[in-house]
Amino acid sequence: MSISLAESKKAVPFSREQLESVLKRRFFFAPSFELYGGVSGLYDYGPPGCAFQANIIDIWRKHFVLHEDMLEVDCSMLTPYDVLKTSGHVDKFSDYMSKDPKTGEIFRVDHLIEEVLEARLKGDKQARGQSADISANADKDNKKEQKKKKINLKVKALKLDDKVIEEYETILAKIDGFNLEELTEIMEVHKIGSPVTGNKLEKPISFNLMFETAIGPSGQLKGYLRPETAQGQFLNFSKLYDFNNLKMPFASASIGKSFRNEISPRSGLLRVREFLMAEIEHFVDPNNKSHDRFDEIKDLKLKFLPRDVQQAGKTIPIEVSIDQAVSTKMVDNQTLGYFLGRIYLFLTKIGVDTEKVRFRQHMANEMAHYAADCWDAELLTSYGWIECVGCADRSAYDLTVHAKKTKTNLVVRESLSEPVVTETVELSIQKKNFGPKFRKDGSKVENWLLKRTEEDLIKLQKELNENGKIKFNVPTIDYDIELDKNFIDIQKVTRKEHIREYTPNVIEPSFGLGRIIYCVYEHQFWARSEDPTRGVLSFPPIVAPTKVLLVPLSNHDDLLPIVKNLSKVLRSEQIPFKVDDSSTSIGKRYSRNDELGTPFGITIDFDTVTDHSITLRDRDSTKQVRGTIEEVIGAIKKMTYNHLSWAEGTKDLKVFESKIEDEE
Amino acid sequence: MSISLAESKKAVPFSREQLESVLKRRFFFAPSFELYGGVSGLYDYGPPGCAFQANIIDIWRKHFVLHEDMLEVDCSMLTPYDVLKTSGHVDKFSDYMSKDPKTGEIFRVDHLIEEVLEARLKGDKQARGQSADISANADKDNKKEQKKKKINLKVKALKLDDKVIEEYETILAKIDGFNLEELTEIMEVHKIGSPVTGNKLEKPISFNLMFETAIGPSGQLKGYLRPETAQGQFLNFSKLYDFNNLKMPFASASIGKSFRNEISPRSGLLRVREFLMAEIEHFVDPNNKSHDRFDEIKDLKLKFLPRDVQQAGKTIPIEVSIDQAVSTKMVDNQTLGYFLGRIYLFLTKIGVDTEKVRFRQHMANEMAHYAADCWDAELLTSYGWIECVGCADRSAYDLTVHAKKTKTNLVVRESLSEPVVTETVELSIQKKNFGPKFRKDGSKVENWLLKRTEEDLIKLQKELNENGKIKFNVPTIDYDIELDKNFIDIQKVTRKEHIREYTPNVIEPSFGLGRIIYCVYEHQFWARSEDPTRGVLSFPPIVAPTKVLLVPLSNHDDLLPIVKNLSKVLRSEQIPFKVDDSSTSIGKRYSRNDELGTPFGITIDFDTVTDHSITLRDRDSTKQVRGTIEEVIGAIKKMTYNHLSWAEGTKDLKVFESKIEDEE
Repeated sequence: MSISLAESKKAVPFSREQLESVLKRRFFFAPSFELYGGVSGLYDYGPPGCAFQANIIDIWRKHFVLHEDMLEVDCSMLTPYDVLKTSGHVDKFSDYMSKDPKTGEIFRVDHLIEEVLEARLKGDKQARGQSADISANADKDNKKEQKKKKINLKVKALKLDDKVIEEYETILAKIDGFNLEELTEIMEVHKIGSPVTGNKLEKPISFNLMFETAIGPSGQLKGYLRPETAQGQFLNFSKLYDFNNLKMPFASASIGKSFRNEISPRSGLLRVREFLMAEIEHFVDPNNKSHDRFDEIKDLKLKFLPRDVQQAGKTIPIEVSIDQAVSTKMVDNQTLGYFLGRIYLFLTKIGVDTEKVRFRQHMANEMAHYAADCWDAELLTSYGWIECVGCADRSAYDLTVHAKKTKTNLVVRESLSEPVVTETVELSIQKKNFGPKFRKDGSKVENWLLKRTEEDLIKLQKELNENGKIKFNVPTIDYDIELDKNFIDIQKVTRKEHIREYTPNVIEPSFGLGRIIYCVYEHQFWARSEDPTRGVLSFPPIVAPTKVLLVPLSNHDDLLPIVKNLSKVLRSEQIPFKVDDSSTSIGKRYSRNDELGTPFGITIDFDTVTDHSITLRDRDSTKQVRGTIEEVIGAIKKMTYNHLSWAEGTKDLKVFESKIEDEE
Repeated sequence: MSISLAESKKAVPFSREQLESVLKRRFFFAPSFELYGGVSGLYDYGPPGCAFQANIIDIWRKHFVLHEDMLEVDCSMLTPYDVLKTSGHVDKFSDYMSKDPKTGEIFRVDHLIEEVLEARLKGDKQARGQSADISANADKDNKKEQKKKKINLKVKALKLDDKVIEEYETILAKIDGFNLEELTEIMEVHKIGSPVTGNKLEKPISFNLMFETAIGPSGQLKGYLRPETAQGQFLNFSKLYDFNNLKMPFASASIGKSFRNEISPRSGLLRVREFLMAEIEHFVDPNNKSHDRFDEIKDLKLKFLPRDVQQAGKTIPIEVSIDQAVSTKMVDNQTLGYFLGRIYLFLTKIGVDTEKVRFRQHMANEMAHYAADCWDAELLTSYGWIECVGCADRSAYDLTVHAKKTKTNLVVRESLSEPVVTETVELSIQKKNFGPKFRKDGSKVENWLLKRTEEDLIKLQKELNENGKIKFNVPTIDYDIELDKNFIDIQKVTRKEHIREYTPNVIEPSFGLGRIIYCVYEHQFWARSEDPTRGVLSFPPIVAPTKVLLVPLSNHDDLLPIVKNLSKVLRSEQIPFKVDDSSTSIGKRYSRNDELGTPFGITIDFDTVTDHSITLRDRDSTKQVRGTIEEVIGAIKKMTYNHLSWAEGTKDLKVFESKIEDEE
């Protein structure tokens, strides 16, 4: 066997079916309420999935919250209508849907159009005798998440007009940007009906994706399950700012479940109705978006897919350092760049393949109108590139809308070390003289004056100083107005401001942890080339649900006390482990645990009884070493918590050759 | 100062108002959506509350899940109607409410009756010139949570008839057990209206406490937010049993939010609409509820308040070992006893006062009909005794109802080492002879025979053997029936069973973590006798939100690099800390952190610049010691993670006298 581990991992082509079968068999996850027929888009995490998730949360918290002294909060999921009306979710957090009037089946319109047109384009290729793999669309498939894995449209070989092909391709390129009227027209013009029954569908309607409920017994306080964890953080801004001793900038963070009532969720764990998010809201001075730890990550090279590259229809990313990306203004500011770097470090720490991460900038039409810049960390999977982390500069939008609606001040008041001097032109009016002169027209004249811009006032000041009076017309008064210094005065005023008041901008890294977890599963799954039915999940030890499998060679009485003692040691060292003392062969027991992603195995055999030595097995290479209990546990701790490789961690242990793996 | 720390902690009487003011000022929690006027029963945890909660979860997971190899799962909160219909929640998870027809205000009926009658009894005492503190009710106040802190009914001095007093007291004693009709009658008879307006209230109605929503775009799949985390665990029983390699007994566990649409939540953090639970479902053989780790906790002495003591109207608990409680059958079985012990150890580890925990057994009418036994861990607070952990033996109820409804088998099939031999009497019928003899009555005779009990069959067998035939009457046939061995045979049959099939029983420890957290706040809060405005939260270091406060004496340039360096060291040791370099006096800074419950303070002064020594301060005693950075950090780690006391942890460090605390 001369091939390397890395080569061996790639020898058997990846099979999503095999991965899913392992994940379900080993109860990483299962459809919720399966006994009752299940509910699409809802999943339960079983013991390994749940432990994996807990490890990811723990690492996220250390990597972000502790590392940067963020202020973590835990806010209510139930959210009253008013809050989400202000944030814009009541009006805009929706997709379009269309119903088959005969079967009642409901389709998400943009996905449906995409699926149908792509199937027709494939049919056209087939009719023309070309490969069904549409090269024109390969870029696109590569660029965007494929959401259409399960309808499995039948492709009919049918040649299309060149003009029609062009139309279809234009629609597909812009599919995320159409409004209700445009989608309705596309369905009409291109005769898109149900792909299942062929029926004409009902006119599309907008469907809000929030779960609605009523809070309290009267039924009158309408509420929703939160669609994101951000709003709770914005609403607590003042308390957090205060908690931070009025220091800026600072970040809050929150980890918790959010909800999205998907119209017809497919794509397994990637599109679900209840999901775990982790969100950071970094509050920053709009005039200074530098970051004082930028140096820590500035030399990291990332794969960027900026707006202009995408506009040119290309998908080959630009690989440059974050420093360069920020200094060329490709990435808007240091803080945004800093977070892109930290996101990358987090993702690769937990097992995302470095070759399968890119940062894609949002196109102008994808971004909310208020956003200054937005980058998604996308991970490559068998479903295409999946958006897993968003990182947006949301400007002052959120704090501004909530402040306005609740008539509160969500601002920072900063003492200036040097006062700022401002010059303005100010108008003063001798009100008491207006009545006698203008009677009922007095207030009209006054209002006209008060509405003058600074520029107008400068001109009027000049006229007043030169002529001793000003002349003007007020649209609703049919005579000329003349005023002298008994009525008005216009002066330049100089002010010193010692306090600067501003609404902080928000930079928001937002993580879909469930999606990231699924991507790690895909990135770390492979099958042994010597037996492709044997799947392995090569999780980094730090995220593996269980670190060690304890395997006695048999259930012989001599071995049981050793298992018990070793369990006690592992427990006191707080190393998560499992014992497998079933009567299955050792090879089978290790196979089972390769599927669970357990990085280390300890075998207890009859030599252990006499010399107290144990065998340590590496999940990925199946290599084994032998040493004392202390040595082996020491090696496990170094490889798990200090990130040492197998070679580094076991260099002081004896290589152990055994026939055990062959028994399988 | 000769008084001890323990005495000093009790010198100033506890004030709930002071505690709440500290908790809000330091943003342990705040009403959710306060900018929008708030929603009662919903709270956000700010940074210290959130960190405290995360520490509690971490300890819970280590104490239960890791310690016992439980199978942790994370299940959906959205739950379809059918599941909760089967579990009984759709029909029974409700309270009774009554509306003021004029103002629309809604009252929870049982609480209202309690409040009004107690106010009348107090008024009677006043009219009789007795103390308003009703001694007859002191027991009751002591026994049960007081839920009525905020209406603050006005007490009118009005003498009542002795008979009326007796009636009121009977009602109050049974208040938890009344049904809708009984409550309606009490309101009618005793003229209980709105305590706010005096209006007569509408007839009480039942109000289901689950939040309802619709899943999916059709609006037709009715769902609820889960009222507990248990159902997801029951539904996954077979997968978990399988994951556990078909070994029994085993436990699953789940930590997550649940929801309860309280009618009118008061009592702050104790009665909320969204709350964090941690639940264990221990699946066990109904014939063997022993626990193999019972010895670990059997000698622990707990305060038990069993059913018979309560029935006798007493509230003085019995303090015995768990071993004794189980062997006398006061606690039903070992597994239940084991969990009571583990619950006690968990609670006291995180800061519950050992003097303020008791275990109260449910009265027969409090328990569900299927429960075999149930004990609540109750914690004493200023609201009275609060139910914080339930520990119930739920028998086979949950698995049985779901299995029946979904027509699946939720059972354990156990191979028996010794087959079980059973003897039965079996009937065999020669069907083909029945038709010719009885015509249309044939099946009636057959059915009659098939319905015989084993006892009947033994008699018939005897008759058949003695007479060669049997005679009997079938109710729907008007002639005598006679059958000989050509028609039937009755034989004793001996069977060997190698497999035993049974539905596991469930023992369920269920933790209201939010309530426990509030109780720890109360148990650990005190005010310094030298200045009662200075509150302290004396959390055990392991649960404290922040372990160390880093305080430079001033913002002098010489001190800043030391702060930076020490921060780096603390971060790399993963010790949660905060820096307070504000210009406030050191005393004020420490005061602020006493309110945050930070156990240790490190002061950096100008001596540090020259000799690298730092001062370590104890939150509780305000004692200080001095040593090198390594020594101090070593001491902090020992006191935080190895549970050493201040005296033990700092015995090698020099005592440091300073005037710093006096500055405050």
